[in-house]
Amino acid sequence: MKDARPQALLVMDPAKFSVQFQEPQLRRLHGLVELTDPIVTHDLDTARVRRRLREVEVLVTSWGCPELTAERLADAPRLRAIFHCAGTVRTFVTDEVWRRGILVTNAADENAIPVAEFTLAAIVFAGKKAPFLAQDARKHRDDWSYSTRRGELSNRGRTIGVVGFSRTGRRVVERLRTLEVDILVADPYADPAEVAAAGGRLVPLPELLPRCDVLTLHVPALPSTRHLIGAAELALLRDGATVINTARGAVLDTAALERECAAGRIDAMLDVTDPEPLPADSLLYDLPNVMITPHIAGSLGSETRRMSESALDELERYLSGQPPHAAVTADEFVVSA
Amino acid sequence: MKDARPQALLVMDPAKFSVQFQEPQLRRLHGLVELTDPIVTHDLDTARVRRRLREVEVLVTSWGCPELTAERLADAPRLRAIFHCAGTVRTFVTDEVWRRGILVTNAADENAIPVAEFTLAAIVFAGKKAPFLAQDARKHRDDWSYSTRRGELSNRGRTIGVVGFSRTGRRVVERLRTLEVDILVADPYADPAEVAAAGGRLVPLPELLPRCDVLTLHVPALPSTRHLIGAAELALLRDGATVINTARGAVLDTAALERECAAGRIDAMLDVTDPEPLPADSLLYDLPNVMITPHIAGSLGSETRRMSESALDELERYLSGQPPHAAVTADEFVVSA
Repeated sequence: MKDARPQALLVMDPAKFSVQFQEPQLRRLHGLVELTDPIVTHDLDTARVRRRLREVEVLVTSWGCPELTAERLADAPRLRAIFHCAGTVRTFVTDEVWRRGILVTNAADENAIPVAEFTLAAIVFAGKKAPFLAQDARKHRDDWSYSTRRGELSNRGRTIGVVGFSRTGRRVVERLRTLEVDILVADPYADPAEVAAAGGRLVPLPELLPRCDVLTLHVPALPSTRHLIGAAELALLRDGATVINTARGAVLDTAALERECAAGRIDAMLDVTDPEPLPADSLLYDLPNVMITPHIAGSLGSETRRMSESALDELERYLSGQPPHAAVTADEFVVSA
Repeated sequence: MKDARPQALLVMDPAKFSVQFQEPQLRRLHGLVELTDPIVTHDLDTARVRRRLREVEVLVTSWGCPELTAERLADAPRLRAIFHCAGTVRTFVTDEVWRRGILVTNAADENAIPVAEFTLAAIVFAGKKAPFLAQDARKHRDDWSYSTRRGELSNRGRTIGVVGFSRTGRRVVERLRTLEVDILVADPYADPAEVAAAGGRLVPLPELLPRCDVLTLHVPALPSTRHLIGAAELALLRDGATVINTARGAVLDTAALERECAAGRIDAMLDVTDPEPLPADSLLYDLPNVMITPHIAGSLGSETRRMSESALDELERYLSGQPPHAAVTADEFVVSA
């Protein structure tokens, strides 16, 4: 530990602060750094915050942190480290941060946990067509023989296609091992041996698509991944396949998906959409073979404290001179969320 | 192995036969026993089947096996063993079977697998209120801020109450270990050490109910478990708790549940109901906080072959003189499914 505790400031949306920093997290933070008024802000441009910035060595950030422009960073000459209590830092980290050599860590790994949990649940429900049969239940009521109309309702022996061996994708593969399913993974950056160790098999995307019963997307939103799954890719899917998207809406071509789902050829479970939310007149809302949830798979409520706690772990390592576990580098911006 | 392969007959619904005995299972069966015309029947009372019964030592049974009354068993003087390719044998095994000392095995353990998978998925979705938010999505459309109206959407740190440390209940507890949740188990027959080893804590039901965010039922339908969860028990649940039933409808008092759900106080995910199906005018179909699926959590399609394969394993053990893994005894009828 350093002799004196460094000066620190929390920069985040006040609503996120109240959820992510409850008494245990605040107590721990006070034990590690000096916090003075203001302890937390989401506005770096007030005179009071600008004065405070001149002293701080550490920012603890979360959702709602404004962009750290060169101008704003000029106010923070002593800033050495940013510990982000959420996933991507893409929304606020700029080239100036990297130029200054400021340490940046994120909690993307912890954010992958609830997304993977939700995705596994979605895959099991997709194998049973549960969301769509539940929708049908209101129509068919006292004749449950309707359940046979959606094909085989079974998970054993199904083939699950995982696109993106990312933090979330890898966790989905690992959790799928609890089911007796075949797991195919497509990811141009993944190592076949690592995929095999997790329980999957790395194949090119065009080989994965025609073979899977459930397709689940775990790639970041990047220019190169926009509409990665478009009309041509959806056309390769089997009749009755289910597409699950818990990643980012733009990875999937919404219009192409809408056509396939409206034709009843494939089903979809969407926690993210493009645009998000969908327009009120989107057909997808009304289709009996589409389940839409309002971007809830990721960390919410108590799940977000898992992320603030991991940021505090990083801060503790920084203070004791240990290397960080989840440092973000300028290079990673190219391929990561 | 015995010198001569014993005579055997399959007794089950023809539709189940075609799913559970595909080419690999039939080939294996033919290698173990003698099958002659008829190979399979669901009617034990025709003259042809009654003649065949006189020769058989082994019945391989599944859904649709008629009751093995003393009269029918009188036709099968050489019958020594019944290998059931499904869960409960309660629907067709009679006292006469036990009196004759006939070996009975079931595949209830294998049937617990898909039920536990489905239940874990339901628990994760319950934590995120996903089925209910998906229902709401059609109403709220382009304003996704509605998601905040159902309280915290998080699984971490939740308390899951598992009623019944049965084959399924035990598997649910084991799978819940992949989540950071507290697991309480109520079961008058369970051993606290076994529950602890699986990852839960055994508590009396009245202590479990007020503490859980999700209540999931895994008890058999018996006279003693009828309405085990009634109005008084439901009243003990927290506001916003979710009741999951993938066991048997009669375990839950439907009228009491309907009142609580209609009041919006608790939510429900029901794969089984009482009666089943519910009457067409049941309120439960229309409530935005109730998800009803048509009894699909258990083994269907390829999942049922897991059960025929385990019955073939039992048959193989019988033929080579090894003890069975899943013999059913008359005593178990009192407490088991």
